[in-house]
Amino acid sequence: MVYVTRKAHFAAAHRLYNPAWSDEQNTHVFGKCNNPHGHGHNYNIEVTVAGDPPRDTGMVIDLKQLAEIVDRELIELVDHKHLNLDVDFLKGVIPTAENMAMAFWKILAPRIPSGKLYSIKLYESDNNLVEYRGE
Amino acid sequence: MVYVTRKAHFAAAHRLYNPAWSDEQNTHVFGKCNNPHGHGHNYNIEVTVAGDPPRDTGMVIDLKQLAEIVDRELIELVDHKHLNLDVDFLKGVIPTAENMAMAFWKILAPRIPSGKLYSIKLYESDNNLVEYRGE
Amino acid sequence: MVYVTRKAHFAAAHRLYNPAWSDEQNTHVFGKCNNPHGHGHNYNIEVTVAGDPPRDTGMVIDLKQLAEIVDRELIELVDHKHLNLDVDFLKGVIPTAENMAMAFWKILAPRIPSGKLYSIKLYESDNNLVEYRGE
Amino acid sequence: MVYVTRKAHFAAAHRLYNPAWSDEQNTHVFGKCNNPHGHGHNYNIEVTVAGDPPRDTGMVIDLKQLAEIVDRELIELVDHKHLNLDVDFLKGVIPTAENMAMAFWKILAPRIPSGKLYSIKLYESDNNLVEYRGE
Amino acid sequence: MVYVTRKAHFAAAHRLYNPAWSDEQNTHVFGKCNNPHGHGHNYNIEVTVAGDPPRDTGMVIDLKQLAEIVDRELIELVDHKHLNLDVDFLKGVIPTAENMAMAFWKILAPRIPSGKLYSIKLYESDNNLVEYRGE
Amino acid sequence: MVYVTRKAHFAAAHRLYNPAWSDEQNTHVFGKCNNPHGHGHNYNIEVTVAGDPPRDTGMVIDLKQLAEIVDRELIELVDHKHLNLDVDFLKGVIPTAENMAMAFWKILAPRIPSGKLYSIKLYESDNNLVEYRGE
Repeated sequence: MVYVTRKAHFAAAHRLYNPAWSDEQNTHVFGKCNNPHGHGHNYNIEVTVAGDPPRDTGMVIDLKQLAEIVDRELIELVDHKHLNLDVDFLKGVIPTAENMAMAFWKILAPRIPSGKLYSIKLYESDNNLVEYRGE
Repeated sequence: MVYVTRKAHFAAAHRLYNPAWSDEQNTHVFGKCNNPHGHGHNYNIEVTVAGDPPRDTGMVIDLKQLAEIVDRELIELVDHKHLNLDVDFLKGVIPTAENMAMAFWKILAPRIPSGKLYSIKLYESDNNLVEYRGE
Repeated sequence: MVYVTRKAHFAAAHRLYNPAWSDEQNTHVFGKCNNPHGHGHNYNIEVTVAGDPPRDTGMVIDLKQLAEIVDRELIELVDHKHLNLDVDFLKGVIPTAENMAMAFWKILAPRIPSGKLYSIKLYESDNNLVEYRGE
Repeated sequence: MVYVTRKAHFAAAHRLYNPAWSDEQNTHVFGKCNNPHGHGHNYNIEVTVAGDPPRDTGMVIDLKQLAEIVDRELIELVDHKHLNLDVDFLKGVIPTAENMAMAFWKILAPRIPSGKLYSIKLYESDNNLVEYRGE
Repeated sequence: MVYVTRKAHFAAAHRLYNPAWSDEQNTHVFGKCNNPHGHGHNYNIEVTVAGDPPRDTGMVIDLKQLAEIVDRELIELVDHKHLNLDVDFLKGVIPTAENMAMAFWKILAPRIPSGKLYSIKLYESDNNLVEYRGE
Repeated sequence: MVYVTRKAHFAAAHRLYNPAWSDEQNTHVFGKCNNPHGHGHNYNIEVTVAGDPPRDTGMVIDLKQLAEIVDRELIELVDHKHLNLDVDFLKGVIPTAENMAMAFWKILAPRIPSGKLYSIKLYESDNNLVEYRGE
C-alpha cells in the first residue's frame, strides 16, 4: 500500500453565516468571518489516493491524470468564485473548511480511476487546516 | 544602512473591475478576476524599513513596534474585508496588487517612527507578487 | 470525523543535559546540544483536534478559540524563555522535542472544549520534528 | 509512542520507462517523464521512526545519528546520480516515487538502531509526494 | 514604478562539464555535478517586470499573460528535458544556474509586452539561487 | 553581473541587553527579548556574492566552496551557541539581527575568493529579517 498525494490551489471568497440565526448569533459564533461582503483565501488542497502500485507502471495512479481530475472536477468549480453564491454543490452548506473538505470528498471519491481516495487536506491559511478521511 | 523587514498577513475578497468599461471589456482584461461576487486571497505583505541602527539599541526600528504599526494602521483595515466594498482608502481604486501596494505605502510611509520606509512587497498568491519602493 | 489543525510558533532556548550523568556522558549522548549556556530554536507546533462538526456551525472547534487556548495555556509559558530554567511544567524534564510534545499534550488535552485532542506535532527545525498522539 | 521525523534532500535524474513496452506505450503511459535523456528533481525525503523515548535520554532516536544513517546508507547512493543508470539497488526498478519509497524502506528499515521505521515520505516536487509505511 | 513577479517551475536533468577540459579538470572543478549520466533539479524561476501601472487597468502587466509567455516561450523548452542534450538555446553553454539565467533573459526580454524585464531569479535548490538583471 | 546566493542555517540562544542601562530601561526597550536566561532562534542566513561568471566555468563562485566557507568561517562559530556568552566576535555587541548581519559581513567579506560579497540577509524568524549590503 502506497499513499500518493497531489496538491492543488484555488482562490475564493466566502462568508461564514447560518441563515437560521440572528445577526448577533452569527457574529458571536463566526466573528469577523461573518463580514457580510465576504472575505477570501488562497486555499491549498492535498488529495491522497492509496493503493498498490502495479508492477508494469510502478504508479498507484498517474499523478498527471490525478491532477487533471482534481482540476476539472473540483478546482474549475471553486477557483475565483464566491463559495456561498457561485458554487452549486455548496448551496446550503456553511463553507467552513470542515464542510468544504467533506463536500470535496463526495465529488472526488467516485472519480478516482485507480486506488482509493484516502484523505483530503484543506488549508484555509498557513496556520489553519483540516483533514477528512471519509470516516 | 540596514534593511529591516516585517511580514504580516491578511485574508480578503476583491474583484478586478473598471466601472468606466463595459462588461465585455472588463471580462476581456480581467478574466475570471472580474467574477461579480468576487473571489479572495490570503495576502502576505513584507514591509521593509531602512536605517542606521543606533549604538545603544542595535535596532533600526523595534520590530515589535513595527509589527504593531502594520497591524493597527493597515491589517485591521483590510483583514477579513471585501477590498472593493469595505475599505475606505481603496474607494475608487481597482484593487490590483500594484494599486494596493502603492496605497499601502501612502498609509505606512508617514507612520514609520525610525528609519525610512524602503519597500512594500505584496504577495497575492505563492506565484504572484509585486513590490513598490516609492519611486 | 474531521481533523482540525492550528499552527503556532515560539522561540526558546534549551540545553539537553541529564544531571545524573557525568559531563563526558552528556557530551557523548547530546553532543553540541549539551552546550552549557544553551542554544535555541524557533519552534513550530501543530495542534490537531478530531471531531464531528455539528450541523449548525460546521466547525469541529472554533479555530480562533483553539488559537487563543494554545496561546494562553502554552505559548505564553514557553515563548522567549529558557526551557530548562524558566518553565515550571518542564522542571526535571530533559527538553528534547519528544518530552516537550508529551508535556504539551498533558497541558492541552484537558483544555480542548469540543472534539478531542488527536495529535501534537513539534518542529524543532525545518528538518527535525516529532509527533505525539497520546498513545 | 512518539513519531520522530528527519528530513533529507537529494538531486537526481531519472526516466520513467518500461523496457518490456514499445516506445508508443511508454509515451502513452509516462508522457514527458519518458524523455529518453531523462529529466530530474530535487527530491525531499522524510524518514519517520516510532518508539518510546527512554527516561534517561528523552529521545526515541538520536536525530543526529538518524541523519547520519540516512546520509550514509541512502543519500550518498542517490545524490547527483541518474537513478536508472547509476544506482545498484534500483536496477530493474522503474523509478517512480512509489517504487523509490518502497526501495528506500528496504534499505533503511534494518538499519534503524532504536525505535522502528514507521514511514517514508518522498516528495518528487512541491506538488507530488508519496508515502510508504511498510504495509 | 512597480515590480511585478511571476514564479514558474520546471524539472530537468543537467551535467556540468567543459568539453575543452580533461576528465580530471572537470571533476576537480565541478565535483559530483560532473557525473556523466547527469543529475537533476526542480528549478524555480522568478521573472520580474518593472513598469508604471496605467490608471485604467492598475496592472504593470497582466500576470496571466506573463504566466502564459513564460510557459510557452521558456518552460515548454526546458521542462522534463536534459539541459545539455535536449535544449537548442543552451547548446554549447555549460548549464550552470548563472549561464541559464542569462540565457533565459535573452529569450524573455524581447517578449515582454508591457513594462520591462527587470530580473530573473533561478533557484537550483532551496539553498542555491542566482539572479540576473541584464547588467 | 550575476548575483549568487547560498543559504545556511544555525540554531542559537541570545539575550538583548545593554549593560549600560538599568533593568527597567532594558525591559522597556527590549521587552521579552531581555529575558535574563535568554531565548533562541533557528537563524537562516543568505549570503550573496556578485560577479561576472568566467566563460570556462560559468560560475561566479563555486557554490560548494561558498558553502564550505560559510560553514567553516561563520556557522561553526555560532551554531548551538549562546551568542552573548560563547562567541568571541560578538563580545560587547548587542546581538540584534542588525548587529549580527554587520558582524557577519566583516567576517565573510575578506574571505570570498571570487566575486564580491554583495548582501547578507539574516532571518531571525519567518516574519523578521534584516539585510546588510556593506553600505
